[in-house]
Amino acid sequence: MSRPEDRAERHKKRMQVRKEIVDAGVAKALEERGVVVLYTGDGKGKTTAAVGTAARALGYGYRVVVAQFIKGAWECGEKNLLGRLPPEQFPLQWHEMGTDFTWETQDFEADRAAARALWDRALAALRDDSVYLVVLDELTYALNYHWLDRDEVLEALSQRPPGQSVVITGRGARQYLKDAADTVTEMRALKHAFDDGIAARKGVEW
Amino acid sequence: MSRPEDRAERHKKRMQVRKEIVDAGVAKALEERGVVVLYTGDGKGKTTAAVGTAARALGYGYRVVVAQFIKGAWECGEKNLLGRLPPEQFPLQWHEMGTDFTWETQDFEADRAAARALWDRALAALRDDSVYLVVLDELTYALNYHWLDRDEVLEALSQRPPGQSVVITGRGARQYLKDAADTVTEMRALKHAFDDGIAARKGVEW
Repeated sequence: MSRPEDRAERHKKRMQVRKEIVDAGVAKALEERGVVVLYTGDGKGKTTAAVGTAARALGYGYRVVVAQFIKGAWECGEKNLLGRLPPEQFPLQWHEMGTDFTWETQDFEADRAAARALWDRALAALRDDSVYLVVLDELTYALNYHWLDRDEVLEALSQRPPGQSVVITGRGARQYLKDAADTVTEMRALKHAFDDGIAARKGVEW
Repeated sequence: MSRPEDRAERHKKRMQVRKEIVDAGVAKALEERGVVVLYTGDGKGKTTAAVGTAARALGYGYRVVVAQFIKGAWECGEKNLLGRLPPEQFPLQWHEMGTDFTWETQDFEADRAAARALWDRALAALRDDSVYLVVLDELTYALNYHWLDRDEVLEALSQRPPGQSVVITGRGARQYLKDAADTVTEMRALKHAFDDGIAARKGVEW
């Protein structure tokens, strides 16, 4: 038997085993309901993954509400794109705090008021069963800075319509938020271009 | 001094220190060039973050080429959305292997031929300085299964136009790929709804 045939045979056997494992997992995962997905950690990709999820849901024509708890004052490419979609085809609402990063404003009361006003809009979405996906971008900051009441947020998540999914992003998610999520991914920064003196790239990082 | 004032003052001081750190980092990060971003690890959000990056670049009207090395045969929401954008406003090309997950096909030679044909299209993009962003989704599989030549891929990455950025995704990125990237995020699965018997959610996970 020649080597390429060996390799093809080994590959086929490995893939058969893998298919059995994947199929068994799929067969067990039968519960159909909305999920809470949490992206945390200090690596890049948390907001980016939330944007990707919004694009995915919109691609099926589902209603999406995005609430950005920090970055409202920033220009960003994803808002340029998603904000210019025809709303009858891609039903998206995009809410922002409209303030700058908190280390720029340095004003606790103003930040808290802006966060609470935004939370009221998020809360309306979390009570609306015509909304398929709610993105709470950078929510962890609003919680960790005590702009929002933790119990109020947890209650709104658990009381949401059963078909509705939620994506939450931000560094430093506390254990109570991980407990409230169905899926938790920690983005770990193994390496960052910024630390090598390379500027954040337009159209890639913002 | 009352407690709320203390808190506001402490917050302001903390944020002043933070602003100095952030500003110092920004002042040092002066090099303007394209970057290679790698999303790896076993957590959710790798392809989703790549899709989000594509949406971001398209939002500025930049040319984007996506090459998906695995999932071509799957329906997915992000393709529904990005594939229906007006191309004159959002210049996107989307290439796929057109085969199913490799543990479904179980055919090494057919997979390799499909991967190599897709690589040729990716390579054309990596040599074209009008392309701002190239997404090589699930490239790690194509490398780890030896469908593609590692040195050829590394050379193409290093020889690409200086303004061009690349996003690479997939589990199990080897050290040579981490070395070739400017920014590496490892997505770690802390918890997954699937393991609790909850089906992958349409419009959220696919």
